[in-house]
Amino acid sequence: MFRPEIKVVDCSIRDGGLINKWQFSDEFVAATYMALSAAGVDYMEMGYRASKEQFSPKEFGKWRFCDEEDVKRLVGDLPSVASSGLKLSCMVDIGRVEEKDILPKAKSAFSMIRVACYLKDVDKAIALCDMIMNKGYETTVNIMAISTNLEKDIDEGLEQLSRTKIPCVYVVDSYGNMFSEDITFLVEKFKNALPGKTVGIHTHNNRQLAFANTIQAVIDGANMLDASVYGIGRGPGNCTLELLLTFLKNPKFNVRPVLKVIEDHYLPLSRKIEWGYIIPYMISGVYNEHPRLAIKFRDSPDRDKFTRFFDMVTTPEPETPEQ
Amino acid sequence: MFRPEIKVVDCSIRDGGLINKWQFSDEFVAATYMALSAAGVDYMEMGYRASKEQFSPKEFGKWRFCDEEDVKRLVGDLPSVASSGLKLSCMVDIGRVEEKDILPKAKSAFSMIRVACYLKDVDKAIALCDMIMNKGYETTVNIMAISTNLEKDIDEGLEQLSRTKIPCVYVVDSYGNMFSEDITFLVEKFKNALPGKTVGIHTHNNRQLAFANTIQAVIDGANMLDASVYGIGRGPGNCTLELLLTFLKNPKFNVRPVLKVIEDHYLPLSRKIEWGYIIPYMISGVYNEHPRLAIKFRDSPDRDKFTRFFDMVTTPEPETPEQ
Repeated sequence: MFRPEIKVVDCSIRDGGLINKWQFSDEFVAATYMALSAAGVDYMEMGYRASKEQFSPKEFGKWRFCDEEDVKRLVGDLPSVASSGLKLSCMVDIGRVEEKDILPKAKSAFSMIRVACYLKDVDKAIALCDMIMNKGYETTVNIMAISTNLEKDIDEGLEQLSRTKIPCVYVVDSYGNMFSEDITFLVEKFKNALPGKTVGIHTHNNRQLAFANTIQAVIDGANMLDASVYGIGRGPGNCTLELLLTFLKNPKFNVRPVLKVIEDHYLPLSRKIEWGYIIPYMISGVYNEHPRLAIKFRDSPDRDKFTRFFDMVTTPEPETPEQ
Repeated sequence: MFRPEIKVVDCSIRDGGLINKWQFSDEFVAATYMALSAAGVDYMEMGYRASKEQFSPKEFGKWRFCDEEDVKRLVGDLPSVASSGLKLSCMVDIGRVEEKDILPKAKSAFSMIRVACYLKDVDKAIALCDMIMNKGYETTVNIMAISTNLEKDIDEGLEQLSRTKIPCVYVVDSYGNMFSEDITFLVEKFKNALPGKTVGIHTHNNRQLAFANTIQAVIDGANMLDASVYGIGRGPGNCTLELLLTFLKNPKFNVRPVLKVIEDHYLPLSRKIEWGYIIPYMISGVYNEHPRLAIKFRDSPDRDKFTRFFDMVTTPEPETPEQ
C-alpha cells in the first residue's frame, strides 16, 4: 500500500511508558529516536505532557511530563540524521494539563500535541485543541474506547468535531476488542462525518488484530497510523512498527534500523517488563473491558490462573436487589 | 460469525510437534484431547502418520507415527466426554508413508487422514487421497506454500482436483506471508474452481496475521479452519484456537477448557520450547521464505542478531557469472 498522505506516528515511549511509569533510560529513548529517524518515521511521540501538581516526579519518569529542557537535552546531544523529517509529539489528557504547561510552539521542541479523550469529553477536547492550535502546534483528537459507545453519541461527537479546525481525529480501539468490520464501520463513519479532515487509527493487540486492523483502516482511508517498536505498549501492546513498515510500500521507510533497536534495546527490555499476547488481556479484549482488571490480575499471585480471570470477567457478581 | 457448516481442526500436536520432534508426554496429549472435547472442537489432529523405515522412533516421538495402538491406549484410558463429537485426524506427506501404514478405517481410531503436498505434487496427492478414501476415511488435500506459486500452475492443480471425489482442499500459507487480500483472492479462486467442495484454511503467524487471515477466509467462505492451542506450531505458530473460538458464534464452542489447558500445560511448555512472534520468522514471512532459514538461525549463537538475519535474507549472494 503506497499513498503519499500516510504518516506514521511511533508511540513506543508514550504508550510503553504505561507499563513502567515512563522510567526509560536516556540511552533507550535516544536509541529509539535515532532508529525512528533512520527508518523514515514521521512522528515520535515521546510521552505525555502532564501537570507536576497532579503527578509526582518521584513516582513517574521524565516522559510522563516531557519537559522541554529534557527533550532538548536529549535530542540536542544526538548526531543529526540528515535526511530525516522526524517530528516530535506528546500527548495530553483532559484535565491533567494546564495552559501554563504548554509553551508557544516557537519555544518548543514539539511539533504536535495530541489530545486523548473519551467521547463524553469531546467538548473539552475541542477547547484544549483550540488552545494548542493557538500556540502554533499541530494537533489531533484521539477518541478512546469507542468500542463502548452508542452510535448516536458517536454521531453527535463527530458533528461537534466537524465544526472545528482540528485537522485529524483518531479511531482508538483502547480495549483491543474490534474486528476488521468494526474498523471499516468507524473509519467510514469518521470520513463521512469529517470532510476535509484526516482519520487516524490506534489499535491494541489483545486479539492479535492490531496490525490487521491498522491495515484495514489504511484500506478504508485512514492516513495517520500509530505503531510502536516491537509492539511495546500497555498489556498486549500496539500495532508493531516493524510489521507496519513492511506493509507500507513508500520507499522512504526502512525497517532495518527498527530491527536493530529491537535487537539492542527492546528485546532486552521485554525480558524485564511484560507486553504482548497474554491471556488475561486477550480475555479483556474479547469482553470489551478496560485493561485495568487484567493489569491488576497480572500483578497478583494468581497471574497465570487464566480460568480464574475468565470467571471473574464472565460471571457477573450477584446484584443488590433494586428498591 | 455463525455458519453451521464450519468445522474446526485443532493441529496443536501435529504442527507443534515440528518444534520438539513430537516428544510430547502422554499427559500433555491427553489433556489436550480432553480440552478439545469439552470445547466442542470438531477434529484433533494428533500428528503425522509416517513410515518407520524413513523416520527413526529413537529420534522422533510417537506422534510422528500415530500408531493405532498408541492412540487407542491414550484415548481409551480417558473418561468419555459425553456430548463431544471430537474426531481424530492425522496427516501424511507425499512419499513419507506407505499403503501398509494405513489400516482400513473400521480398524482405526482415526476418522480423517489429511494429505499435505506442494502444488507440483497434486497428482501424487490425488492418488494418495484415493487410497485413503478407499479405506473409508475422510480426507483433505492441503496445498502448502501456495504464496510461492504462479497463478497458471494453481489453476491447473485446481482443475485436476476438481475432477476428483476429494471433499476438501486447503489454502495453506506455509510461510506466513499473506495479507487478507491474498487470502480473499485464493479462497475465491478455490471456491470457483472446486464447486461442491469445501475450502479449508491453514495460516501461520509470522506477521501476526494468522487469526486475521483465518477470519478473512471465513468471511470469504472457507469452512474447514485449522487452529492450535495458544498458537503452538513451528516458528511463529498458527492461528490460536482460543481466539478463533471467541470469533465463531456457534454456541457449541466453549473457550474455557482451552484456557484451562493453556494454564496447566501450554504456558509451562512455552517456557521450554519457543514459538510465537519472533523477529527472524517475521522476516522470513515478509520475504516469503521457508522457515528453515530462521529455524537454523535460532539454533545458532547469533539467534538474537536480528539485523544479521535480515541482511542474510535481503542481500543476495554474489552470483556466479553466466557462461
